[in-house]
Amino acid sequence: MNSDRLTYGLAERIVAADPLGDSQAVGAARAGVLDWLASALSARGDSGADRIVSALGLGAGAAVNAGAGDATVLGRGYRLAALDAALVNGYLSHALDYDDVHESVRGHPSAVLLPALLAEAEARHATGADFLAAYIIGVETMCRLGLALGSSHYEAGWHSTATLGVIGAAAACARLMRLDTDQTVHALGLAVTRSGGLRLHFGSEVKPLHAGLAARDGLMAARLAEAGITGDQEPLEGQVGFLSIFSGGEARPERVLADWGDSWQIYAPGLWFKQYPFCSAAQHAADAALAIRDRDRPAAADIEKVIVTYPPGGDAALVIRHPKTGIEGRFSVEYVIASVLISGELGMETFSDRSIPADVQAIAAKVDRQYNSQIVPATNAMPKGRFTIVNVRMTDGTTYIERVDCPRGAPGRPLLEEERLAKYEDAIRGLPVAWAKLPKLIDELEELEDMGYFIPE
Amino acid sequence: MNSDRLTYGLAERIVAADPLGDSQAVGAARAGVLDWLASALSARGDSGADRIVSALGLGAGAAVNAGAGDATVLGRGYRLAALDAALVNGYLSHALDYDDVHESVRGHPSAVLLPALLAEAEARHATGADFLAAYIIGVETMCRLGLALGSSHYEAGWHSTATLGVIGAAAACARLMRLDTDQTVHALGLAVTRSGGLRLHFGSEVKPLHAGLAARDGLMAARLAEAGITGDQEPLEGQVGFLSIFSGGEARPERVLADWGDSWQIYAPGLWFKQYPFCSAAQHAADAALAIRDRDRPAAADIEKVIVTYPPGGDAALVIRHPKTGIEGRFSVEYVIASVLISGELGMETFSDRSIPADVQAIAAKVDRQYNSQIVPATNAMPKGRFTIVNVRMTDGTTYIERVDCPRGAPGRPLLEEERLAKYEDAIRGLPVAWAKLPKLIDELEELEDMGYFIPE
Repeated sequence: MNSDRLTYGLAERIVAADPLGDSQAVGAARAGVLDWLASALSARGDSGADRIVSALGLGAGAAVNAGAGDATVLGRGYRLAALDAALVNGYLSHALDYDDVHESVRGHPSAVLLPALLAEAEARHATGADFLAAYIIGVETMCRLGLALGSSHYEAGWHSTATLGVIGAAAACARLMRLDTDQTVHALGLAVTRSGGLRLHFGSEVKPLHAGLAARDGLMAARLAEAGITGDQEPLEGQVGFLSIFSGGEARPERVLADWGDSWQIYAPGLWFKQYPFCSAAQHAADAALAIRDRDRPAAADIEKVIVTYPPGGDAALVIRHPKTGIEGRFSVEYVIASVLISGELGMETFSDRSIPADVQAIAAKVDRQYNSQIVPATNAMPKGRFTIVNVRMTDGTTYIERVDCPRGAPGRPLLEEERLAKYEDAIRGLPVAWAKLPKLIDELEELEDMGYFIPE
Repeated sequence: MNSDRLTYGLAERIVAADPLGDSQAVGAARAGVLDWLASALSARGDSGADRIVSALGLGAGAAVNAGAGDATVLGRGYRLAALDAALVNGYLSHALDYDDVHESVRGHPSAVLLPALLAEAEARHATGADFLAAYIIGVETMCRLGLALGSSHYEAGWHSTATLGVIGAAAACARLMRLDTDQTVHALGLAVTRSGGLRLHFGSEVKPLHAGLAARDGLMAARLAEAGITGDQEPLEGQVGFLSIFSGGEARPERVLADWGDSWQIYAPGLWFKQYPFCSAAQHAADAALAIRDRDRPAAADIEKVIVTYPPGGDAALVIRHPKTGIEGRFSVEYVIASVLISGELGMETFSDRSIPADVQAIAAKVDRQYNSQIVPATNAMPKGRFTIVNVRMTDGTTYIERVDCPRGAPGRPLLEEERLAKYEDAIRGLPVAWAKLPKLIDELEELEDMGYFIPE
């Protein structure tokens, strides 16, 4: 193949990179694995997963037979074929919108990468070291492609978790499988031609399904390349290449390889771990509203109006203004602010399929969104250029204001280690005790000989 | 749901249509099924299918165990789970580029629709009547969406067989499963968010793989909707809806429902069946070159130059100018013309993975493409606006010219019934005798009680 080509250059890096030599990358990857497990396990009872398994048409026995497949379905006590496990675990990982975020992706890397990697690592008994290295490389690939596409991609309506996730998962799986450079080019080419997924489904269970489908498709792309399927040799660049089509011609292809792996994207700028299960674009507002609640204790009955101010487009992911259930509320800043002001509760129950209490609904109806392009975001704003200002105006004219540019959990304001562990411990409540040993195992994941023994039965 | 919405209107038509009341539609559908089987069976030995099955990771026994799944893999003597059978049969259907074409799609409807439908019809023992009706409805849906997207879709780099096929297959399977209108809306929504596939892979085995993936994804979309997965209620229209995103904002949404089913697209303008296994955009040139060969008998040694003239963009699908193998030659008008002028042979062997003989290569190197926007295409041109002129200039100055606007096999110049039968009979050579009975069974397909008994073991 032509080594001047962009896709070939990317494949070379995927094959040759040594991310385990970078202790910051390894530390970030360990944190990512733990937070991902916590996010997916928190959703293990989600009924959407049952519906997805039923659509696979495996027959009555398959899903409950622990010996039916190579790969674990997280926290559900059964196994499936690796491709199907990647699908279901991807869905679970993102079902609560509780999983990590990366600003270069404008989406969720681990919810796609880790389900694909875990399924394949279990099926082929890969080492923990190969698993971790592949994960770091998958994040890097997804992020660099996101930077190359630029903001027009997401704004046009694409769900970048899915569109970039499938390519990142293919890159990660190609590395895990130790494909050579030519095979990796084809894995990438098979992935870009599977890229898709539309933002219009935000606020429905199709959003997390996208993560599962991208995980499955990315793994399948790598497997097809391993099996010898070959396509075009330059799927990324050119007028009808991926970058052009998915950016409306505004991509900057040189960004794919610039600084690739110099400092790994998994720690610079790094993964953003959530303390609460809802869309990242509302997390700043939640922090601001919580600060007002703690400091000013506004009485709900006396609230006249709430104004929430974003930079233009900063609320694009928050597609729901009048949520009917807690699930829809994951994409409604109105609901998040109202929930804080009424109860301060932002836990699992608040974002379940319950219908919304009348008092919360009343406050949510008083929230107005405004936009201001004049305000200069802080240098540690996450994502870059973002801020949110919450302004609570009381009937007596008093006004309470709080501004957040970098929310809790974002790289600039990381969760404490005990908070991250608490998220995991909450998630495994009710599971067998073997699950409690995973945080320690993750701390030594590079030493694990066989990923088949990572996840408890 | 809101019945004014476009997607709801489309779903209503999919649910309520009665295409079996239209004898022309039924006749066209029967012809489509026969030609599809011929096209897929001709490819049954293709090694790409083995590689795809191996990537599924089913384990050694699964693929050869006739009891392993619900659905037939065509001509291969084994069964797979319905989703996997749809994938493999979709690949086989398009592997030779021998399958039908529809100008409203600018692509291949049956290679996606029929593998999805057959797999599900076998798995749930549907009737032949439901199968035929669902097929006609799938073609209609795919075509109407193609008309609504307009030409910018394909030109931007999308492979419309895949991008539209997944939605057509979801519509067809939704009808076969007798989903209600709301479920059908969600089947369509789950399909549009799976839409993808890039033309850059033309000339490789990823092109036919797209057909298989679209078949699988379309069937899965309908199954997910049946299982109760729900997404956005208007996935087609709006600024970030499918039609806008996939047309670069140039779609005409009103075309989706205009005349829907008044005269079915399956016969007006109708399916185009191929006599030779290569890209439709080179079939006019093949007919022209064959006419010159028969009439003028130009000696290969005395050919100085061949000029082939298209309307601008008419050769967009013919991405290969210097093919190295017969497979690449399926997308090279240079190779097609040279093969005719050297041997007149356009059969399976010509488009196999053989390397290209030196004499054919020599003539192919003398072919130049030209474009002319002044020439007025015939009213029966297929696709609309297309013509191809082949001009063979000899060293002594003699020039032989032939122009074709409507190639053989296209609706305006249909193959004879015996030619269509001969294509099928060629395809089943070497298969058990039961296969010889299928043409008669297809003639009475509306009477078949159980599609589980359609395809011979």
